Amino acid sequence: MPKLWNETIASHRHTVHEAILTATAELVSEHGLLSVTMSQIAERSGIGRATLYKYFPDIEAILRAWHERQIACHLHQLGELRERGGPPGERLQVMLEAYARISSGRFSHDHAVLELAAVLHTGAHVVEAEQQVHDLFKELLTEVAEVGGLRDDVAPDELATYCLHALSAARSLHSESAVRRLVMVTIAGLRPAR
Amino acid sequence: MPKLWNETIASHRHTVHEAILTATAELVSEHGLLSVTMSQIAERSGIGRATLYKYFPDIEAILRAWHERQIACHLHQLGELRERGGPPGERLQVMLEAYARISSGRFSHDHAVLELAAVLHTGAHVVEAEQQVHDLFKELLTEVAEVGGLRDDVAPDELATYCLHALSAARSLHSESAVRRLVMVTIAGLRPAR
Repeated sequence: MPKLWNETIASHRHTVHEAILTATAELVSEHGLLSVTMSQIAERSGIGRATLYKYFPDIEAILRAWHERQIACHLHQLGELRERGGPPGERLQVMLEAYARISSGRFSHDHAVLELAAVLHTGAHVVEAEQQVHDLFKELLTEVAEVGGLRDDVAPDELATYCLHALSAARSLHSESAVRRLVMVTIAGLRPAR
Repeated sequence: MPKLWNETIASHRHTVHEAILTATAELVSEHGLLSVTMSQIAERSGIGRATLYKYFPDIEAILRAWHERQIACHLHQLGELRERGGPPGERLQVMLEAYARISSGRFSHDHAVLELAAVLHTGAHVVEAEQQVHDLFKELLTEVAEVGGLRDDVAPDELATYCLHALSAARSLHSESAVRRLVMVTIAGLRPAR
């Protein structure tokens, strides 16, 4: 049964891979970005150092994989909200709030992890993810326009760009309620002209 | 007359300093960021290489000084608009348009210079300048609130943060008219609730 055997190996590798990323994020959050070592990561993941090096050549590679996983997770969240039923206007509000919370970094509650994300927040995978988020919002805004809930003097494409930048202000805000107010102000900019 | 003599020297040094920055910006724009040399900069500035090194240790130091000059120039522009007379609502529109144009980089018409600004757009002088721009907008929004032209359910401080982030979308837009639409949408978010 070579196929099953291969599947078992793949699944095991996936489990170890995930354990390494989680252990690294925990260690960064406990000790800061610069004091984490490959030995600590191996120990926390429950594997030997030699095994760890079979998965990742260095800490930077682990951090990058962790960051890619975070971004994929956020995209998945937004994509799921996009697919939900209900009136487009309500779905838009829910998605804008989810994106603002992601931008605020409040999901991580952690300075070291935020700092890390800022350092890593460059590169092709980020550009591609931003494009995907933009497209999600553009599609949803187009639906809202079809039911008359959107201003009609600016294209959904440009309004999506406006939304994503306006909501990036969540990073500078210091409370959940300020983030909710930001979403409310951003939505006010999208409404049909009086 | 030692005082006059000192003034002459200071003024001469200032002129040379400015000539070096301008020459460097021109060369970066002509040849790209990575192919500019200290010799070319000296030649274009009309000074010797040895003299150039008395002003700046390397190209990075020149580029950083050039970037600081750009930022100071933008702050000065915004500060002047802030001081102008007229109804606060109109001044707000003018300042938001000016800031959007600055953010769009359309004043420079030049990919290499924009790329350069992106590379340099970190560091204490940038953080301080952003705080100053935020304060300019916060003050003006407070004035607009006093004449009843602003929504009263969100503080001017938070609305200033919203404006600056929303207008940073100008960087992703591809025409002057798109930038004007962005300003219109951003202002719609600021209006008193219906």
